[in-house]
Amino acid sequence: MAVYTDVTADDLTRFLADYDIGSLRSYKGIAEGVENSNFLVHTDTGNFILTLYEKRVAAGDLPFFLGLMEHLASRGITCPQPVKNRQGGMLGTVAGRPAAIVTFLDGLWIRRPTASHCAAVGEALARLHLAGADFKMKRANALGIESWRPLYEQAKARGDSVRPGLCADIDKELTTLAKLWPRDLPHGVIHADLFPDNVFFLGDSLSGLIDFYFACTDMLSFDVAVCLNAWCFEPDHSYNVTKGRALLKSYDKVRALEPAERAALPVLARGAAMRFLLTRLVDWLAVPDGALVKPKDPREYDRKLRCHQSVKSADDYGIN
Amino acid sequence: MAVYTDVTADDLTRFLADYDIGSLRSYKGIAEGVENSNFLVHTDTGNFILTLYEKRVAAGDLPFFLGLMEHLASRGITCPQPVKNRQGGMLGTVAGRPAAIVTFLDGLWIRRPTASHCAAVGEALARLHLAGADFKMKRANALGIESWRPLYEQAKARGDSVRPGLCADIDKELTTLAKLWPRDLPHGVIHADLFPDNVFFLGDSLSGLIDFYFACTDMLSFDVAVCLNAWCFEPDHSYNVTKGRALLKSYDKVRALEPAERAALPVLARGAAMRFLLTRLVDWLAVPDGALVKPKDPREYDRKLRCHQSVKSADDYGIN
Repeated sequence: MAVYTDVTADDLTRFLADYDIGSLRSYKGIAEGVENSNFLVHTDTGNFILTLYEKRVAAGDLPFFLGLMEHLASRGITCPQPVKNRQGGMLGTVAGRPAAIVTFLDGLWIRRPTASHCAAVGEALARLHLAGADFKMKRANALGIESWRPLYEQAKARGDSVRPGLCADIDKELTTLAKLWPRDLPHGVIHADLFPDNVFFLGDSLSGLIDFYFACTDMLSFDVAVCLNAWCFEPDHSYNVTKGRALLKSYDKVRALEPAERAALPVLARGAAMRFLLTRLVDWLAVPDGALVKPKDPREYDRKLRCHQSVKSADDYGIN
Repeated sequence: MAVYTDVTADDLTRFLADYDIGSLRSYKGIAEGVENSNFLVHTDTGNFILTLYEKRVAAGDLPFFLGLMEHLASRGITCPQPVKNRQGGMLGTVAGRPAAIVTFLDGLWIRRPTASHCAAVGEALARLHLAGADFKMKRANALGIESWRPLYEQAKARGDSVRPGLCADIDKELTTLAKLWPRDLPHGVIHADLFPDNVFFLGDSLSGLIDFYFACTDMLSFDVAVCLNAWCFEPDHSYNVTKGRALLKSYDKVRALEPAERAALPVLARGAAMRFLLTRLVDWLAVPDGALVKPKDPREYDRKLRCHQSVKSADDYGIN
């Protein structure tokens, strides 16, 4: 939950004067997003989300994120649409931070997804991959495999406080992943963070995708592997093959997975688990004992990683 | 900022089934309130605020708070109105917490109030006092003068870490306040926490009052003294007599202050400063070093208290 920057009514009124969405009626900081400050803004014409980009987001990446949302929306993906100002720009400044205003999406995120939710996510992810195919901008995955060893180096000194032996296990796994990592699978725009809190439902229907601030250009099947990790495990950290099968089959119906992509699923799933294990570990170690806001527990991804390491073949994910 | 309890879509859907406000379209935890968890809820019929009462709020006080909001709204005060469920009740349960849903108020709170905002607040406070006159329920002020020494005892061991000598000064002031504290001034319903973030404006007009969770039965003029502390100081902690005069004159036009209330203003202002100094001090000392969420700085009220101690008479507040 995050509001890092206080925004005054004057700041916001000044910013909105450059937009054609009516005058400000109210705004509230919302407890969502960990990288940016987010506000729900109510004007004469409706509800919007204002995002102030804090220092963890590189300002140079913002045109990619905003351009991508606009592109996807134009291709029929329901996602927040950046509102343009009178000069046609999507980026302004509020309280000294780069800021953008996007349309508000109705919908609820699902705390305990069922196989039917997983199927809906698989389909939406494949549609997103197809819709992104003709997006012209590129952005390297800042949390791709090249970043993992540097992240590990940050966590190494105190990583074993989370679990004795964790650091040696990560070190060994990173060496294995570097050897096995596929390089020539189909690339394109990936969401890279399509966790349940970034997918909205209304009733049983998926109603929208949000939070494109990790989106980048990488292997499409890595995005699938992120979703298997995020959607198809039970609270006891066991993989639920019924959910996995639902997600993979729905994906495959919209965008058929190539044989090489299917075969690579186990190593991609290990890599995806490693990516979230490492960022959670770094965040966990950065927060002092007793802090009011607890970051997410890295051990969840330690356990998921070990589950993937024991997989015999892609079939174990329910792909066939 | 506060969301202490995670609410699932299922929890909330189940809760709303008992209300006649349409079906759930979205909800977001909002970064407001320090005692409770608050959510902005959007249904087919509009926007609402859902509050989950956390353990710092005594469940036995909730009928007072909710009844008061309903009473004041019926007397023309613009404040959130509790929505009644199908049984006519205002209180339910969400995620194991007592919970209530109230109407959403448009409006913005003013970070840097002017004398004209202070005048509007003075008038609104007096109207609130008049509207509360025939409210039948009573609630003792849990943060009234009787609570101050026990709060001080909690903070005593480490209070001087905030300012050397602070504890001795508080101890001495508490003794003085106990001697000088008025007892027979007009009593009634007071808001007790009418800080700028609890007063909404639209344009130059005051559009509503929120957060009645410190409301209680106490001296009306103590509420005036809280507002003088909260609204009429500059960022350098100097008292702005123009703002004070604006607030007091507007109040007095709607509800004339009795001579004894006017005369008591300096000691009431000291008491009000002491109340916020003590609660901020206790909160400040309870949070570990380096925590992400910093409580409000108690030193602001230490400085205000010293300012009030140097006042010669009520005239210094701009009352005449």
